[in-house]
Amino acid sequence: MGLYDADAISRLREILGQEDASAMIVPSSDPHFGEYVPDHYKCIEWLCGFTGEAGTLVVTMDRAALWTDSRFFIQAAAELDGTGVELMRQNVPGTPSLAQWLKDNLAEDDIVVMDEDLFSYSDYTAMVDALAPVTPSLVEDPFDRIWKDRPALVFNPVRHIGVEISGETSMSKYERLCRTLAMPVPFAYIMTAMDDIAWLCNLRGTDVEYNALPMAYAVVDNRGIALFARQAMLSEEAVAALTSNGLTELREYEEFGRYLQTLPKDCVRIFASGKVTAKYFFAAMDNVYNNPSIPSHVPDPVTGGTVAMMKAVKNEVEADGFRKACVVDGRAISRVIAWVRENAGTGITEKDVALKIEEYRKESADYLGESFPSIVAYGANAALPHYSIPESGGAEIGRDGLLLIDTGAHYAYGTTDTTRMIPLGNLTQEEKDDYTAVLKGLIRLSMAVFPQGTRGCLLDILARGEVYRRGKRYLHGTSHGIGHVLCVHEGPQSIRMEENPVALADGMVLSVEPGVYVEGSHGIRHENTVIVTPCTDAGSEGFSRFETITRAPIDLSPVNASMLDDSEKEWIESFNRCCSL
Amino acid sequence: MGLYDADAISRLREILGQEDASAMIVPSSDPHFGEYVPDHYKCIEWLCGFTGEAGTLVVTMDRAALWTDSRFFIQAAAELDGTGVELMRQNVPGTPSLAQWLKDNLAEDDIVVMDEDLFSYSDYTAMVDALAPVTPSLVEDPFDRIWKDRPALVFNPVRHIGVEISGETSMSKYERLCRTLAMPVPFAYIMTAMDDIAWLCNLRGTDVEYNALPMAYAVVDNRGIALFARQAMLSEEAVAALTSNGLTELREYEEFGRYLQTLPKDCVRIFASGKVTAKYFFAAMDNVYNNPSIPSHVPDPVTGGTVAMMKAVKNEVEADGFRKACVVDGRAISRVIAWVRENAGTGITEKDVALKIEEYRKESADYLGESFPSIVAYGANAALPHYSIPESGGAEIGRDGLLLIDTGAHYAYGTTDTTRMIPLGNLTQEEKDDYTAVLKGLIRLSMAVFPQGTRGCLLDILARGEVYRRGKRYLHGTSHGIGHVLCVHEGPQSIRMEENPVALADGMVLSVEPGVYVEGSHGIRHENTVIVTPCTDAGSEGFSRFETITRAPIDLSPVNASMLDDSEKEWIESFNRCCSL
Repeated sequence: MGLYDADAISRLREILGQEDASAMIVPSSDPHFGEYVPDHYKCIEWLCGFTGEAGTLVVTMDRAALWTDSRFFIQAAAELDGTGVELMRQNVPGTPSLAQWLKDNLAEDDIVVMDEDLFSYSDYTAMVDALAPVTPSLVEDPFDRIWKDRPALVFNPVRHIGVEISGETSMSKYERLCRTLAMPVPFAYIMTAMDDIAWLCNLRGTDVEYNALPMAYAVVDNRGIALFARQAMLSEEAVAALTSNGLTELREYEEFGRYLQTLPKDCVRIFASGKVTAKYFFAAMDNVYNNPSIPSHVPDPVTGGTVAMMKAVKNEVEADGFRKACVVDGRAISRVIAWVRENAGTGITEKDVALKIEEYRKESADYLGESFPSIVAYGANAALPHYSIPESGGAEIGRDGLLLIDTGAHYAYGTTDTTRMIPLGNLTQEEKDDYTAVLKGLIRLSMAVFPQGTRGCLLDILARGEVYRRGKRYLHGTSHGIGHVLCVHEGPQSIRMEENPVALADGMVLSVEPGVYVEGSHGIRHENTVIVTPCTDAGSEGFSRFETITRAPIDLSPVNASMLDDSEKEWIESFNRCCSL
Repeated sequence: MGLYDADAISRLREILGQEDASAMIVPSSDPHFGEYVPDHYKCIEWLCGFTGEAGTLVVTMDRAALWTDSRFFIQAAAELDGTGVELMRQNVPGTPSLAQWLKDNLAEDDIVVMDEDLFSYSDYTAMVDALAPVTPSLVEDPFDRIWKDRPALVFNPVRHIGVEISGETSMSKYERLCRTLAMPVPFAYIMTAMDDIAWLCNLRGTDVEYNALPMAYAVVDNRGIALFARQAMLSEEAVAALTSNGLTELREYEEFGRYLQTLPKDCVRIFASGKVTAKYFFAAMDNVYNNPSIPSHVPDPVTGGTVAMMKAVKNEVEADGFRKACVVDGRAISRVIAWVRENAGTGITEKDVALKIEEYRKESADYLGESFPSIVAYGANAALPHYSIPESGGAEIGRDGLLLIDTGAHYAYGTTDTTRMIPLGNLTQEEKDDYTAVLKGLIRLSMAVFPQGTRGCLLDILARGEVYRRGKRYLHGTSHGIGHVLCVHEGPQSIRMEENPVALADGMVLSVEPGVYVEGSHGIRHENTVIVTPCTDAGSEGFSRFETITRAPIDLSPVNASMLDDSEKEWIESFNRCCSL
């Protein structure tokens, strides 16, 4: 059962007893608030066996309860079974909020503790408000003391990438960052998001699953960059490259908190990411000189974050790297499609297909690894947008219906994210029409022309419109940003129904992935990668469009041609021709 | 020059001197914050001659300056010429903000006064923040004392409309309002928006230009409705109808402030509209009992306002009234189109066309008046989206190019808002393609299917997409709500690029009006009225679509057919067939 330890909760209660605490709140995050949490921080799994990505566990002296959202209800019920931990289904009528439940179960002077390393400052203050009159206390991570065999943090070798991959030196990025911040007074730009730091310093690593990231923190100030990482994992060449590119301090990863406590009194603190742990927030504010004419900390001046926005806009070298990655990856995907067609009905499973993708990708010397776990979903399995292949191998691929493959890779020069449908035979009319409706959404959004400054949500209907006309909908976003050999899900831009004030800008790389899901029957998603590109035709100054860079063909055999207009047909045929070049 | 009085500013300065004040800030609003301001409140025009709808005038003892936005730069420069009032072009680099300018021109202990009747509470508090350390003071309207011949407020007869027009009694609306508010404690729902009050009480009037509104205030509480209006203008029948429909108090319009001061201490104040004057806000809060367990005032619990939202969702009787109004008005517009075709090139002017529309409309006994001043714009005049016909009559309509007519009316049962293009001859290819691009936008948005709960901004690109593909754009909204014999521009819903959290709901009536404007050449806008309607096809539960109710045909002779797909052609042909039934 993985990290789960049936004695963990009693050990935690012992510690709580020693500290006179009555309850502890344990979130599912880590100090960097990234998408993938290292095993070291999977405290919830150790305590109760729950492996979902989002949940909050509360342990009191006699009860324990886990709050999670509807994505994880079934999984959580199974994993909590027999552990004595109660499942609290969020947003289901009758479920108390975590704060209400704690207030109902505690006295006003009871002590509730929260790990200062795992709660962001904003989540901590929100919890303080919600729990009033009970006041929670921040405590040091107690798990090191009680979690025998706790997985250590992983620090693998870190490499420096040259301008032939990054397109811009770290020094140039540092200088642009300072110009953008334009702070008239001394400042400390405090960076805790690992992909922001990797981008700024042109470093790549393998410390986080599916992400080409080294574990690191950084502080940028008027003099340069202070980097906190595992020094032993940096080659001499990397250190030399950093040193000639604005690095002023190189310290151990663990020294970040102590360094924050020594920030000059009169510098303005800027927290680069929306998320910083309570521990680091208070460390950085520990020493603030109360000069009322200078605010002690200010929000990042750029919507979505200055570095996040700089990183989201790719330069031409990065864009070319993405294009090259799409060509190499497109070839691997095309071969997998052919292999599936040949072998469907011979006993191959979803897992075999995933392994075959990996096998073909590995033939490229530039392949670094998957950018997320491949989704290979046959038939009704594809109706679950986030299906994951079971350990046992998953469904056998038959000669009927549709197979969905959603897969991505990191190459030395770029990252990919592609979903392709393989029609295997005997599709129903509903499947064909859904296939075409989703394809029409992909095409319409891909063909869009829009003024610079357009927010992603304004384009979302282009992808969904035809699905809606069929009385269907998909609940996930239409598009996410893609990092350059960093994280496959990257902000701050997006195309989804929810309001996001960040405008699409030339150079941004995004997925385009409409879908439709019919429970118990089929799921369809077509996904390409696009780059936002200025329109160059005379008279279209100030407008942008999407350049589609994915190079895996889309099977047109199921298409209901009457649902596409001439320009749409022309677009998809031209796209497929590009894929076969 | 209308209301302008060259001595007005010196008279205001005399009063300021008597009060030891150094400056006064005068906004362009009135106490109801509606779209059309009665002459009584056109203090800016009286002081400096500026007739634009948006501006703020500051008068100090030796200077005076008017802040206005780019829509009014040319007009303001002309109107202020020779008055000694400086023009401050908002959002132009180098223009100081009003607050900065005042701070630069005043000492810290100088007194700045603001009319408590003309500033909303929120604008007042924002001004207090912006002017710090200078503190502005609210004063009673000083203009009555110094403005000789100040136009009086207009109070015309007020009529009560029956359920055959409104579809719902005032009592039923009152009861629904109380249920929606669901206040567990005594409350006072304070209403200052005249159209909200007219809707709730089923009253209509003619006190405001182009709006079928009586001047009124109201307070709704647990017992019923207190109405503040000119009692002499209410017929006995109207009073009887009100009294049998929840009216508990009927008082003079001017007694509203005094009534607010006598609200029960322990009731919760809810300000129904986002805008309430500083005077009425403080009057309502004057007497608040400080019971910390009951908040003294709470925001309106419904996004956009409870009554505004109830009013925006039309019942079937209202919807039928809109449909009938569209049929009657469509006939008048069709006749005008024919008349223009016959008489173009014979010396008829834009003004003649506007008068002809009025003439044809008056043939209907149910016609109440225009819902806004007709825009009749020939050729390049149409490139100004808010062109108004000059007193002199405007351009002569020739036999070439395009004529734009944007016009609306109130009938006893409904309100219309329609824009039609009349192609007169010899159109350029650019005009034809622009005409088709705008038409395609109209059709695409009109054909949209969308899930209940969709925000208007998510559909906006459907109207703009084809205009964008031509490297062009329009800066106005795509759609506004339309009131039922109230105001032609009605919230809270909209379809525009800006985020608006209000979702489209079945029963809402909206315009659909994409456009394109080429300076010095031509302007094109096609505008229909639509009702949000549930989809009734099997399998489309939870989705809505638009029912287009306008019944004036769209001329297809300029259409570039290659720009429309089959379903779009089918839609517009079917629409035109409906218009000729």
